[in-house]
Amino acid sequence: MRLIGVGVGPGDPELVTVKGVRVLREASLVVVPVMDAHERGRAEATVRAHVDREPLRLVFALDDRGGATAERLSAWEAAADRVAQELRDGAESVAFATIGDPNIYSTFTYLADAVRERLPQVQVSTVPGITAMQDLAARSGTVLCEGTESLALLPLTAGLEVFEQALTHFDTVVAYKGGRHMPRVRTLLQQLGRLDDAVYGAALGLPDEQVGPLPEDASPYLSTVIVPARDRVSRGSKINPRGDL
Amino acid sequence: MRLIGVGVGPGDPELVTVKGVRVLREASLVVVPVMDAHERGRAEATVRAHVDREPLRLVFALDDRGGATAERLSAWEAAADRVAQELRDGAESVAFATIGDPNIYSTFTYLADAVRERLPQVQVSTVPGITAMQDLAARSGTVLCEGTESLALLPLTAGLEVFEQALTHFDTVVAYKGGRHMPRVRTLLQQLGRLDDAVYGAALGLPDEQVGPLPEDASPYLSTVIVPARDRVSRGSKINPRGDL
Repeated sequence: MRLIGVGVGPGDPELVTVKGVRVLREASLVVVPVMDAHERGRAEATVRAHVDREPLRLVFALDDRGGATAERLSAWEAAADRVAQELRDGAESVAFATIGDPNIYSTFTYLADAVRERLPQVQVSTVPGITAMQDLAARSGTVLCEGTESLALLPLTAGLEVFEQALTHFDTVVAYKGGRHMPRVRTLLQQLGRLDDAVYGAALGLPDEQVGPLPEDASPYLSTVIVPARDRVSRGSKINPRGDL
Repeated sequence: MRLIGVGVGPGDPELVTVKGVRVLREASLVVVPVMDAHERGRAEATVRAHVDREPLRLVFALDDRGGATAERLSAWEAAADRVAQELRDGAESVAFATIGDPNIYSTFTYLADAVRERLPQVQVSTVPGITAMQDLAARSGTVLCEGTESLALLPLTAGLEVFEQALTHFDTVVAYKGGRHMPRVRTLLQQLGRLDDAVYGAALGLPDEQVGPLPEDASPYLSTVIVPARDRVSRGSKINPRGDL
């Protein structure tokens, strides 16, 4: 019995790999995480673009702002119970579609741990997926790193100090999960003279996509900020209109 | 006229996105970088798995160990001359297939700059691709980051000091371009008590794939080392045999 975490990219249904599509189609059951059982999630939309069978929705807290709260833990436990039951009931393989990459800030990590607790013999695998960082780089015409430059990736939920330290020690810095921290991020970047070069993105590849300068107000939880290496000349490549390619 | 950098992933022909395949198929001309005009490169193998037309080989120095040497600069110049000529001669779009992601340590950055110098009106776009870091994470069963953990990515050509600093300030550290630095990397990780958790990979998705502990000797230039966050319990997931998925 197998549990496979499949990265389906940030939102654009075409940003899933050929391998991801094949694994989703071959799986006995495809599971998609949703915030609400009656709502189509971002991962589900990409799955439906490539797989004919009906995916199983599992209510899962994607937002980990509050740490491992009792409510979120119980959602994971219930999701793991259901996946383990499907595997016990004869599903040879369960594919869990996760936005982005299953090994980068993914709820798949928690699900896999919880399923493994229930079924130690389960074989866990992952298929990589395009991250929001990479999609924002492409959509905004921003080079992430070249030559000997270093790149730091961190969630703003780790604290603004970690972000500031990264800006000091690293060339390009990418921050996820801006949310309510965004106004402070903006102020900090302005003080450091790096606001004008920074690029912000949210809902990448979706109808309400935002790509451009940092907003002044709080942003969605699933948002991305790229602060390119200082002193690197802006490549001047134009931001692609959505759907351009 | 358009120049599009398409990330084709680290080597496994299935690790290209659906969008990447479409853009390669739709382009007027597909260009692949090779080290030698008579040799099939890694990007070309993935292109040939999905595109029927013959790609154009451009000799390009992938190895930037020595900085911008005269030889490498002249290879880029010649490549840019040829791409600019194809666009002037009527090619509506040229797709350049690059291993990994076109915005992460990619030769595409240099090519795009050089083509833009020759044809300021060219529109440059990119399609993201799976990086070696993500593929090694998947193939070795290594979670890159979860929760509030930070991730640092750097080339060892930046110096071992930068790598050591990253190990101090960041949770998970990923190093590219180990090459001849690998023995010193190994010694440093042993001193820091982090060697046993580290994972090494080279030729990912290719017949001579290596995934496992760090080698004692020098490694290929295109190699990857993941040093997972300290204190994170190893997930214990088994390394997938090649071709497993």
